[in-house]
Amino acid sequence: MRVIRFEYKNKISWGVIEGLVARVLSRPPFEKIKLTDKKIALNKIKLLPPCLPGKIVLCGLNYRRHAQELNLTVPKEPVIFLKPATALLAHGQKIIYPPGVSRLDYEAELALVIKKPGRNIPFNKAADFILGFTCLNDVTARDLQKKDGQWTRSKSFDTFCPLGPWLETEVKPGDLHIRAYLNSKIMQDSSTRDFIFPVNYLVSFISRIMTLAPGDVISTGTPSGIGPMQPGDLIEIEIGGIGRLANRVVRRVK
Amino acid sequence: MRVIRFEYKNKISWGVIEGLVARVLSRPPFEKIKLTDKKIALNKIKLLPPCLPGKIVLCGLNYRRHAQELNLTVPKEPVIFLKPATALLAHGQKIIYPPGVSRLDYEAELALVIKKPGRNIPFNKAADFILGFTCLNDVTARDLQKKDGQWTRSKSFDTFCPLGPWLETEVKPGDLHIRAYLNSKIMQDSSTRDFIFPVNYLVSFISRIMTLAPGDVISTGTPSGIGPMQPGDLIEIEIGGIGRLANRVVRRVK
Repeated sequence: MRVIRFEYKNKISWGVIEGLVARVLSRPPFEKIKLTDKKIALNKIKLLPPCLPGKIVLCGLNYRRHAQELNLTVPKEPVIFLKPATALLAHGQKIIYPPGVSRLDYEAELALVIKKPGRNIPFNKAADFILGFTCLNDVTARDLQKKDGQWTRSKSFDTFCPLGPWLETEVKPGDLHIRAYLNSKIMQDSSTRDFIFPVNYLVSFISRIMTLAPGDVISTGTPSGIGPMQPGDLIEIEIGGIGRLANRVVRRVK
Repeated sequence: MRVIRFEYKNKISWGVIEGLVARVLSRPPFEKIKLTDKKIALNKIKLLPPCLPGKIVLCGLNYRRHAQELNLTVPKEPVIFLKPATALLAHGQKIIYPPGVSRLDYEAELALVIKKPGRNIPFNKAADFILGFTCLNDVTARDLQKKDGQWTRSKSFDTFCPLGPWLETEVKPGDLHIRAYLNSKIMQDSSTRDFIFPVNYLVSFISRIMTLAPGDVISTGTPSGIGPMQPGDLIEIEIGGIGRLANRVVRRVK
């Protein structure tokens, strides 16, 4: 199922997509997906990021070929970092190119959303803790990333975490085609088969550091082909079996 | 005033300390501190971390003398990083020494809590956005910090963000005595007069990256004298005009 969070007539709801309508859920989808009879046409709703995370945990280098291309040794453990929830951006909303930044990059990533609380989750139980998968764009001010050494500032600006358009609850994450399109041109083109650390490993690894909660987001790193965006550009992250997350880059007006 | 969050008879409330009692607030303290007539003896309540932050933003090197001691040039801009809210720990609760970690350090810090939403806050308006100040211990697995390069993992374990005991709403942050005591021995001993970036600068700087919300925490870096803790140790962070945050270190039992 494709689970969405959306706004309609100033009210925020959860739903699932059925053809051209959103079927409204009676409660958040974490414990169980409970449908109501209420349906709203998709062209009347405003999509929101498909969860409200307490934390967004991302992973550095996680594609084997990308590591080789950069002449880096394949890491033995994931390197993790955090984005604040204030960086979240829905499908269709605008990425703001901040003043003082000179290079702003896209990074296509597969993200997962946590279904239930967990800590010290064993590898072979990790799948039970995942509600679904979605597309994430790890927008990065590359110049600030280099300047700071630490990655936080460069990845934490408001709008730097496009997520969506929805959560796909039925896809298997081991062999998904992942692409970034910049103004419709393919810039990143890989598969999650190339993961150094599979999804279940990441969930288990992170849960040994911090307690996970429903709605938390874990992102899985980006493949080769990252590059800069300019104001006016359309950036799209597409993952096979999930969908396509599209956002346009703009300069801040004020 | 000293603002607390606490649990009493399975109910979580906000209060202010009046002598030996907690005077209960009718609502969270962010917009206005509204007292009720209800009072509860302090020895009957369980203190909680004194806010529920959407984000916890910390600052690297921010004490001039500490920079000189490390032979580092004084930075031109703050380096920031995030801790997840799951790392929060109340006064009196136990810091868990994680398996696989070989060096666990204390770092005494002055933290502030945000009062109202803000972005692009001018330096000279920053004080209006601060509800109060408290003590923070930026607990760090120093071995993992060195191994990862990125600081997130080493600083994000559950219990690695002791905060409290309370928010002091009336203190001025520019000249506060800050100390860490390890088993009652003074290990860090400095003053916020030595700040490279004053509190108002940090609030303004961070608000130009990410929108701030009531309850968000900003921490201001640690002075010289950081060092390791062992299971069984008592670590205390004391800030003049605020109070003393005490936590004991334990090995995880299970």
